[in-house]
Amino acid sequence: MNEQTPPAVLPLPTIRRYPIYLRCIRELITAGELHISSAVVAERLGLDPVLARKDLAMAGVPGKPRRGYPALALQDAINKALGWDSTTDAVLVGVGSLGNALLGYRGFEEHNLSIAVAFDANPGLMGLTFHGVKVRPMEDLPRLVRRLAIKLGILTVPSAAAQACADQLVAAGICGIWNFTSVQLDVPDKVVVQNVDLAQSLAVLSHTIATRS
Amino acid sequence: MNEQTPPAVLPLPTIRRYPIYLRCIRELITAGELHISSAVVAERLGLDPVLARKDLAMAGVPGKPRRGYPALALQDAINKALGWDSTTDAVLVGVGSLGNALLGYRGFEEHNLSIAVAFDANPGLMGLTFHGVKVRPMEDLPRLVRRLAIKLGILTVPSAAAQACADQLVAAGICGIWNFTSVQLDVPDKVVVQNVDLAQSLAVLSHTIATRS
Repeated sequence: MNEQTPPAVLPLPTIRRYPIYLRCIRELITAGELHISSAVVAERLGLDPVLARKDLAMAGVPGKPRRGYPALALQDAINKALGWDSTTDAVLVGVGSLGNALLGYRGFEEHNLSIAVAFDANPGLMGLTFHGVKVRPMEDLPRLVRRLAIKLGILTVPSAAAQACADQLVAAGICGIWNFTSVQLDVPDKVVVQNVDLAQSLAVLSHTIATRS
Repeated sequence: MNEQTPPAVLPLPTIRRYPIYLRCIRELITAGELHISSAVVAERLGLDPVLARKDLAMAGVPGKPRRGYPALALQDAINKALGWDSTTDAVLVGVGSLGNALLGYRGFEEHNLSIAVAFDANPGLMGLTFHGVKVRPMEDLPRLVRRLAIKLGILTVPSAAAQACADQLVAAGICGIWNFTSVQLDVPDKVVVQNVDLAQSLAVLSHTIATRS
């Protein structure tokens, strides 16, 4: 009867701010704080105190007037809301230069993200291991994603292949795509896409620099 | 008298879309097209035709009714507007796991971005070369950025060091910061910041997956 319930669905802007709160809470805990008030967090982060109060309240930890939230319980609750309290397995599709760089990025571990397997269409890469992750052919994607019950796909393929690969991920049961391509993916509503478009970001910077020199 | 004028300052949303147009234009040129109309580009990219017409007109290439723009001239003009027609030199600050991954990312070359030198506070890294880029101590940052006339800084330091490093970059004359930390940087108005917050992006995905399983 007492099954573990999944965390409540929270507003996306709150979720986007949670990693920043988490860093601040971690610093306060390291500094020896046992209780943390939303006012202190808001001040340290330069945020609106009302916003910080609402965001932290949504973590569902009972706070005490004047003292604030118990620091460790608040940290745990935010980690849980982010799904960072247990490992999230992911697959990476496209082992080019960016895919390879992400496979080598150790920062994901901090957030309990683990890339279980990588896929590529290049036969020359088959069976090779990059940063401890084995490359498999695209044909194996549906079977492996289902068998490993993986819900997150990291897309680092060339633009021309992006939509087709996203379609394959969705068909295999993925419910979140981390899209590092420049393509606006067309996916069903139930699938969440987060775009990290380095070319777009660089465009703004290099345009700014070009027009000022 | 006939000095080369810098490209006009364009609206940021247009600049953000330019890399996507560029990819489409490159594909059409590869397919043998000599002229490109905004209507064709809009259709291929699923964009509003009025928006695409305005965006492409801002590149400043004279088009012809019915035929469209000369393909190569349009490609050159967009590359120029993005500052991708000549090499942009950058410095990278923070040679941790992410900094190292970015130093190894060959995709920047496609956009004529070159990381000239990297800085780190860790004495153990001094003088080492990662992916062909030498690591220098932070003390050398002001002098080297000025001497090499570098305008773009890539920030991949731990959060706690982010603002101080940004301050050093700004003081050295940087006018664009590519911020891969989770910190909202406080910089003068004349400095453009582009945030790529992987933790925030991952938070949305892992929260979604945690609340659906």
